[in-house]
Amino acid sequence: MSSNAIRVAVIGAAGRMGAQACAAVEQAAGLELVARLDAGDDVGAGVRDSGAQVAVDFTVPAVTEANVHAVLDAGAHAVVGTTGWDDESRGRVVEHLARVNADRSDDSALGVLIAPNFGLSAVLAMTFAAKAARYFESAEVVELHHPNKVDAPSGTARHTAAAIAAARADAGLGPSPDATEVGWEARGADVDGVRVHAVRLRGLVAHEEILFGNEGEQLTIRQDSFDRASFMPGVLLAVREVGSRPGLTVGLENVLDLS
Amino acid sequence: MSSNAIRVAVIGAAGRMGAQACAAVEQAAGLELVARLDAGDDVGAGVRDSGAQVAVDFTVPAVTEANVHAVLDAGAHAVVGTTGWDDESRGRVVEHLARVNADRSDDSALGVLIAPNFGLSAVLAMTFAAKAARYFESAEVVELHHPNKVDAPSGTARHTAAAIAAARADAGLGPSPDATEVGWEARGADVDGVRVHAVRLRGLVAHEEILFGNEGEQLTIRQDSFDRASFMPGVLLAVREVGSRPGLTVGLENVLDLS
Amino acid sequence: MSSNAIRVAVIGAAGRMGAQACAAVEQAAGLELVARLDAGDDVGAGVRDSGAQVAVDFTVPAVTEANVHAVLDAGAHAVVGTTGWDDESRGRVVEHLARVNADRSDDSALGVLIAPNFGLSAVLAMTFAAKAARYFESAEVVELHHPNKVDAPSGTARHTAAAIAAARADAGLGPSPDATEVGWEARGADVDGVRVHAVRLRGLVAHEEILFGNEGEQLTIRQDSFDRASFMPGVLLAVREVGSRPGLTVGLENVLDLS
Amino acid sequence: MSSNAIRVAVIGAAGRMGAQACAAVEQAAGLELVARLDAGDDVGAGVRDSGAQVAVDFTVPAVTEANVHAVLDAGAHAVVGTTGWDDESRGRVVEHLARVNADRSDDSALGVLIAPNFGLSAVLAMTFAAKAARYFESAEVVELHHPNKVDAPSGTARHTAAAIAAARADAGLGPSPDATEVGWEARGADVDGVRVHAVRLRGLVAHEEILFGNEGEQLTIRQDSFDRASFMPGVLLAVREVGSRPGLTVGLENVLDLS
Repeated sequence: MSSNAIRVAVIGAAGRMGAQACAAVEQAAGLELVARLDAGDDVGAGVRDSGAQVAVDFTVPAVTEANVHAVLDAGAHAVVGTTGWDDESRGRVVEHLARVNADRSDDSALGVLIAPNFGLSAVLAMTFAAKAARYFESAEVVELHHPNKVDAPSGTARHTAAAIAAARADAGLGPSPDATEVGWEARGADVDGVRVHAVRLRGLVAHEEILFGNEGEQLTIRQDSFDRASFMPGVLLAVREVGSRPGLTVGLENVLDLS
Repeated sequence: MSSNAIRVAVIGAAGRMGAQACAAVEQAAGLELVARLDAGDDVGAGVRDSGAQVAVDFTVPAVTEANVHAVLDAGAHAVVGTTGWDDESRGRVVEHLARVNADRSDDSALGVLIAPNFGLSAVLAMTFAAKAARYFESAEVVELHHPNKVDAPSGTARHTAAAIAAARADAGLGPSPDATEVGWEARGADVDGVRVHAVRLRGLVAHEEILFGNEGEQLTIRQDSFDRASFMPGVLLAVREVGSRPGLTVGLENVLDLS
Repeated sequence: MSSNAIRVAVIGAAGRMGAQACAAVEQAAGLELVARLDAGDDVGAGVRDSGAQVAVDFTVPAVTEANVHAVLDAGAHAVVGTTGWDDESRGRVVEHLARVNADRSDDSALGVLIAPNFGLSAVLAMTFAAKAARYFESAEVVELHHPNKVDAPSGTARHTAAAIAAARADAGLGPSPDATEVGWEARGADVDGVRVHAVRLRGLVAHEEILFGNEGEQLTIRQDSFDRASFMPGVLLAVREVGSRPGLTVGLENVLDLS
Repeated sequence: MSSNAIRVAVIGAAGRMGAQACAAVEQAAGLELVARLDAGDDVGAGVRDSGAQVAVDFTVPAVTEANVHAVLDAGAHAVVGTTGWDDESRGRVVEHLARVNADRSDDSALGVLIAPNFGLSAVLAMTFAAKAARYFESAEVVELHHPNKVDAPSGTARHTAAAIAAARADAGLGPSPDATEVGWEARGADVDGVRVHAVRLRGLVAHEEILFGNEGEQLTIRQDSFDRASFMPGVLLAVREVGSRPGLTVGLENVLDLS
């Protein structure tokens, strides 16, 4: 065991994302995989006994919150890629963090990072789109996915459109200009006033294109996720950063250095 | 007057497209502008007196059919960029052509070319899309225009989608795969079973992107019209070719050499 | 054994492409895999004994020509995806085909299809580019690949540029306009007068973008190969079509219906 | 005269950019055009007599520095879109600003903003590219311009590539992976280790595409400048912001709110 490496446990290690996370941690410089936990395992004991400093949760909505509380009780930080969190469950994590961190020194205070998306290109696209939004008269979002996806538009596209809408409102911009009188069904879904289009095409995985327009110019931000492997750099970044961010952090963008 | 140049009259010469057509004809090798006709002018006399061999009509739906009949009676070929034609008006032109061509030798037989779109990139994109359609499991169309456009999706996009649908049906393909259960409003308009999305963005003019997908591969055909100037190469091509195509031809694609 | 199915042998069945071809044939309607041949197997005997009507060769340059001659001697058609063919080796196949077909009736005449690329999107992109080339003032090619590729530009991009150059010459077009005085090293490789740029990027597989420009308009044809799986529809198409094309055919585009 | 409007002089008002700047200022809420100055005019007197608070310089390299010093002596802020500045000329402006601001209160201190590019999409693309660079294994730049451009690659593309290279170095990243052995002439120009490709195509104006890649994902940032009109929102933003940034500011990105 390298004395400097961050010791990492993966919960949900047998799942697809969990298995990739294990492999990624094992290959990463400065990280050490010390526990693979899965359904049936006692998460608290597994984290404590392995001496893990950070636990990564890729499980299912039904158990992820209990896992995070067990990780905190075991004295470790948590990085969470499982979906299904809402204001209430996040609130309970905030309370738990406050309680455990009251007894810890500043530099040993625990942190939890919940990230709906670990794709760096996706997170950066969303972040840049929110920053650019105030400077353009028009904005629309096109997401493109494989045809087996059951919901439209994608969560990432909704999130992006909502962030654009918030930035436009903040800058005092009204709705994007649109003279459409006939054919609204071709104009996409309305997410907080921003039009979002969903393309479904065999051969694609998960892609998003954000279009901004002014008189005489266009800015396009596009991200392509070709493979689940693309999430691993974001997972590793989160594992490395969570220890220096006490409390609850939601969104990988908050651990990126975009100054 | 060069003895070999094709003599051209432009009807609607004071309009935006007509004025550009005049300028384009004047600058084109092998063409000579012999008449600029406009509202109030006698089209038949104008064509006859100028000795025009080809008349280009960029007027308005209300008068374009009468102009074409007058051009034929004056013994000239017609190239028509005006919209508003339907099966009945086209049928009357076919009859008129049959009547006048019965009295003419084969190599002096008159031709009329009606083109909804003179943009080479637009016509080629549509033509290639129709040819490619049978080879892909999925197909969708995204059109992008300036935000002052009142109708969605664009006529070109509808036309493209209909051609894709026809080619798929001809090849025995069913609908593109689509597991969407929630969020149909983001999935665009349904044109003969092909999804068509309309983006409206300040700064754009007229653009179309056609996406085809198979397992592991994608083909994208995109055309951009940045400026009305882009229609002139198609107009000149039509003027040069209409003389060698007796009868009615609909669509610039039919005078392109795509063999 | 279905009496109507086409019986197929795969040579090089243990290689990556060969293995995928075996799987694709097994799953395809109307095709039956009757032999998997590999290094050490007697190709002629394997084809003859299995009753294969079509043999697919995905081997290596050193043996592919001998395999084709053995397939012909065994009385089967050949579909060849192996590289390394030149004018001389193709000439010997033409001679062999003439010899064996002299003794066969028209509808049992043998055919060989050699395809440098079985990707439908790649072949269509190249074919459309060649057709479009005569109608545009400017043309350039950008190919994008994974960073492990040792040669630039890709064979497909070279092939595309050469086809564009030939079509431009045929139409009497000179070189694309280019006022560059400083910085030629940024202007890509010159392939028969057409500029070809090679991008290398982690995450990519094999992609090609062909750009055409006129005053005021642009046509872009792009193809993406994300996965080797994308070649299988082209392989199956070739297997189905080779029997109706006696003699040597080079290029999948020649079995596509693009009329 | 609205008492709240910012009073603006335009120097080089008869030039193409200057004339557009005059029109843009006249139409902008909260700005008032009080002087149009051109070759032959006394810049200092023109600014002083008109009561201009901000002077916009769109002239030529030979006179822009003298204009800025005259503007400062007249007690106004300067926004400069003219090229040709170097470290020495900028240094003299910094000294001049220090001298005049020593006698002024903090909130009346003068500012000069020199912007090589007023296109919001171009400036944002560059800024986002610099921020994203540290998170990707590979990065390349493709710029696309009209074929009358004499230099390659464009200044914007060089600037972008240099910023990417600096960010990569700062994050400890080595060069982008590249196994190219044959065909370096297709791999673009090397700008601080980042590959930059220049496409020249009739119909285009000024465009830049920045590509980032990791295993399984891609981020693309693209900006299109279709028209000189696209620079005006950036000019107006600079005019509004220069008064609150004492001293010399280089680059429009520094007055954007990207926090």
